[in-house]
Amino acid sequence: MPEKILDDISHRRYNPLRGTWLLVSPHRTKRPWQGQQEVSPSKNTLPEYDPSCYLCPGNKRAQGDINPDYKTPFVFVNDYSAVKEEQAEYKQEGEPKDLSSLLLRADAVTGKCYVLTFSPSHNVTLADLSPAEILPVVHTWTQIYSAHLSPKSPLSAISVPKTVTRAGNAISAPNAQYKWMQIFENKGAAMGCSNPHPHGQIWTTTGLPEEPTLELEQLMKYRHEHGGKSLLTDYAKLEMEKVERIVFQNTSFLVVCPWWATWPFEVMVISKEHKRALVDLNEAEKLDFAEAIAEVTRRYDNLFETSFPYSSGIHQAPLEGTDEEIEASHFHMHFYPPLLRSATVKKFLVGYELMAEPQRDITPEQAAARLRDCGGELYRRYLV
Amino acid sequence: MPEKILDDISHRRYNPLRGTWLLVSPHRTKRPWQGQQEVSPSKNTLPEYDPSCYLCPGNKRAQGDINPDYKTPFVFVNDYSAVKEEQAEYKQEGEPKDLSSLLLRADAVTGKCYVLTFSPSHNVTLADLSPAEILPVVHTWTQIYSAHLSPKSPLSAISVPKTVTRAGNAISAPNAQYKWMQIFENKGAAMGCSNPHPHGQIWTTTGLPEEPTLELEQLMKYRHEHGGKSLLTDYAKLEMEKVERIVFQNTSFLVVCPWWATWPFEVMVISKEHKRALVDLNEAEKLDFAEAIAEVTRRYDNLFETSFPYSSGIHQAPLEGTDEEIEASHFHMHFYPPLLRSATVKKFLVGYELMAEPQRDITPEQAAARLRDCGGELYRRYLV
Ligand SMILES: O=P(O)(O)O[C@H]1O[C@H](CO)[C@@H](O)[C@H](O)[C@H]1O
Ligand SMILES: O=P(O)(O)O[C@H]1O[C@H](CO)[C@@H](O)[C@H](O)[C@H]1O
Repeated sequence: MPEKILDDISHRRYNPLRGTWLLVSPHRTKRPWQGQQEVSPSKNTLPEYDPSCYLCPGNKRAQGDINPDYKTPFVFVNDYSAVKEEQAEYKQEGEPKDLSSLLLRADAVTGKCYVLTFSPSHNVTLADLSPAEILPVVHTWTQIYSAHLSPKSPLSAISVPKTVTRAGNAISAPNAQYKWMQIFENKGAAMGCSNPHPHGQIWTTTGLPEEPTLELEQLMKYRHEHGGKSLLTDYAKLEMEKVERIVFQNTSFLVVCPWWATWPFEVMVISKEHKRALVDLNEAEKLDFAEAIAEVTRRYDNLFETSFPYSSGIHQAPLEGTDEEIEASHFHMHFYPPLLRSATVKKFLVGYELMAEPQRDITPEQAAARLRDCGGELYRRYLV
Repeated sequence: MPEKILDDISHRRYNPLRGTWLLVSPHRTKRPWQGQQEVSPSKNTLPEYDPSCYLCPGNKRAQGDINPDYKTPFVFVNDYSAVKEEQAEYKQEGEPKDLSSLLLRADAVTGKCYVLTFSPSHNVTLADLSPAEILPVVHTWTQIYSAHLSPKSPLSAISVPKTVTRAGNAISAPNAQYKWMQIFENKGAAMGCSNPHPHGQIWTTTGLPEEPTLELEQLMKYRHEHGGKSLLTDYAKLEMEKVERIVFQNTSFLVVCPWWATWPFEVMVISKEHKRALVDLNEAEKLDFAEAIAEVTRRYDNLFETSFPYSSGIHQAPLEGTDEEIEASHFHMHFYPPLLRSATVKKFLVGYELMAEPQRDITPEQAAARLRDCGGELYRRYLV
C-alpha cells in the first residue's frame, strides 16, 4: 500500500466534510512528556445515589425545582441556559455600510437549552450501559428533535412514538421556530463536565451555527456534483473497502477513525445508508445506533483502563431549512476525546493548532487499530 | 449606548478577520462551578538555573547537543520537530476524479521547527521582563522571519540588522522555500507547555495553514472592497473611538479585547498603521511592540495573581505569496488564555463549541475593563 509511508512522514490531510486541512506528524509521539497530567480515578468510587447531585432523582435543582423519581431518561430546561426563549429585543443600529455595522456586528440569538440524564444511577456512564439501556436515550433525543421540527420540514410528517414521555419531562413546543438543535455530551472533568452523573445537553438556537454550516455546505456541494449522492454514504463505502480505519460496524452504522481525524482517538459514527435525521431511523436502526454508542464508549474506557473523557455530538438535518439542505443532511455522530498516550496524558490543541492549523501525532489508522483491539467486556467489571 | 443591552442578552458576534461567528451568553457566568480546577502555584518557586532543564544554558538536550552558555535569546532546531526539512517522497495515487483521491486526500508537508528561549533564566516569564528585555526576542523573531523570506517577496529587500546573532543560534537559510512561518508560545501547563523555562516555538511549512488562509482571504476581500484600506487599520481606528475594548496602547500598537473574542480574556495586539510583517517595524516600533507584550502578560498575571496560561501567536505576511497577499497582510498578535473566573477555573471550549460554534460567557467589554484595571507592578514583586 503506497499510503503506508504516511505512517512516517509529515503530511496534511483534507477533511471533505468541513472543507479544511489538518497537519499529521506521526513521528512526534516519540517525544517525552513532562507536561500536565490529568487526574485519573481508575476505579469508580461514586455512590449510586448522591444526595448533593442536582441530577439524581428526587433532588432539588438550582432554581428550586425538584427532580421527579425518574427511571428513564429525564429532560429539563437548563437552569443556566446559554440561550433563552425570551429576552430584551436587540437590533443593531447604523447603516449596513457603516464601518461599525461591518466591524462590530452582532445578532440577537434566542433558543432553548435542555439537560438530559441518561440514567437515574449517579455512578454509571454510557460505557456501563447495554445497547438496550442506551435505546431510551436515543428515543428521547428523537422525541425532542421531532417536537422542535418546523411544520414546513418534510421530516415533520414522520410520526414519532410518544411512549417515552414521562411526567416531569419538559419537552414542549418551543415559543419560536428554531433552526438548529445541537445534541451533545461533555464527558469527564477534562472536557469541562462539572457533574459525573451521566447526562448530555441539547441547545437549540435561531441561527445555524458555524460547524453545521460548514458541513452542510460541503454536503450540498458534493450532492450537487455527484448526481444526488451523499458524501458520507460514499465515504462509508470507501472505508468498508479499505478496512484499516474501521473500529466497529453493524447493519446500519459504521464506526471509523476518520481519515481527517483531529483528536487522537476521534471517531465518527456514520449511518451507512442516507438518513437525514433521528426521525429517519426505524426501531432496528435506533438499536444499531445505541449499539454503536455502546461500542465506542466501552472501547474508549478499555483503551487506557480509565473513564475516558470526550465531547460527542450529533449532526443531522436542521430543524428548519430549504428542502435541499434537509435532503443533503446525513445523520452522524462525532466523538472528540483528548487523551493521547495514557489515562493521564492528553493531546493539547494549543499554540500551533489555534494560530495555524490542527495538528495530530498518531495516525487515524494507528488509532483505529488500537480501538479495534479493545472491544469485549468493560475493564471495570474485572476490577475488585 | 444601545449596545449596553448586549451585556444581558444572548447574541452572536461576527469575526470579520476570520469570516466566522461566535455565541455570547453574558448571563452564564452566574452558574456555580463544581468542575475541574487547575493547579495553581501562586508563588514562583523555580530555581534560576535547573540542571535537568533542556533549555537552560550549558545543559544537554534530547539528541545530545549541548546548549551554549547563552545570554540573549537562543534558537535551535526542535529535537522533536513536527515537520522536517527532509523526508521520504509521497505523491497521492489515483486520478483526481477517483473517490479515493477526493475523500482520502493527503499532501506531503516539509518545513523547519525552531525553539526559541526568551531568557537564560529558568524562573522568569515574559511578564517578569521589561520592554527592553523583550526587545531582543522581537529582534530574533525578525531575524528568523527575514532569513526565511522568499527572495521574490518585496519584503526581502528590507535589511535586518544581524547584530543579535550569537554563536550557537541555528538560524540558517532553509533547504526549500517555505510559505508560512508560525511564531507562537504555549505558556503554562494548562496550555500543553511541558517546560516552564520561558520559550516559544517557530514552525515553518510548505503549505499555508488554515488560520492564516482564512484571515488572508478576509483581509484581501476588505482591501478590495474598501479602496486598498486595511481591515485592521480601520478596526483599530474604530476601537480608539469606542474606547471600551481598549486594554492598552502606545504610539504604534493598540491592545484590545476584540469585539469577536472567543477566549475569556483574549486580546489582540494590532499595529495601528499598516505594517505587513516584523521587518516593516523600525526600532522604535519594535520597542513599542515589546512594550505591548510586556503590558499584556503582566496584566494577565495580575488579573488572578497567578502565572496566567495562554497561547499566543503572530500573524503577518506569508514568507512567499502573491504581491496582493503580502500587501493585504497586517501584522498582529493574538493571545488566547483559557482562565475565566480565577487562577483555577478555566473556560472549556468543548461540546457545543466543538460541535456547533464557539461560545463565551463574559463579554469582551467586561474583560477589557478588568484588564485595563490591573496594570502597574507585577503582583509577584510584592509577595514575600
Ligand atoms: O511542542 P510541544 O511544546 O512539545 O507541544 C505543545 O505544543 C504543540 C504545538 O502547539 C502541540 O501540538 C502539543 O500538543 C503541545 O503539547
Ligand atoms: O454547560 P456546562 O456543563 O455547565 O458547561 C460545559 O459545557 C458548555 C458547552 O459545551 C461549555 O460552554 C462550558 O465551558 C463547559 O464547562
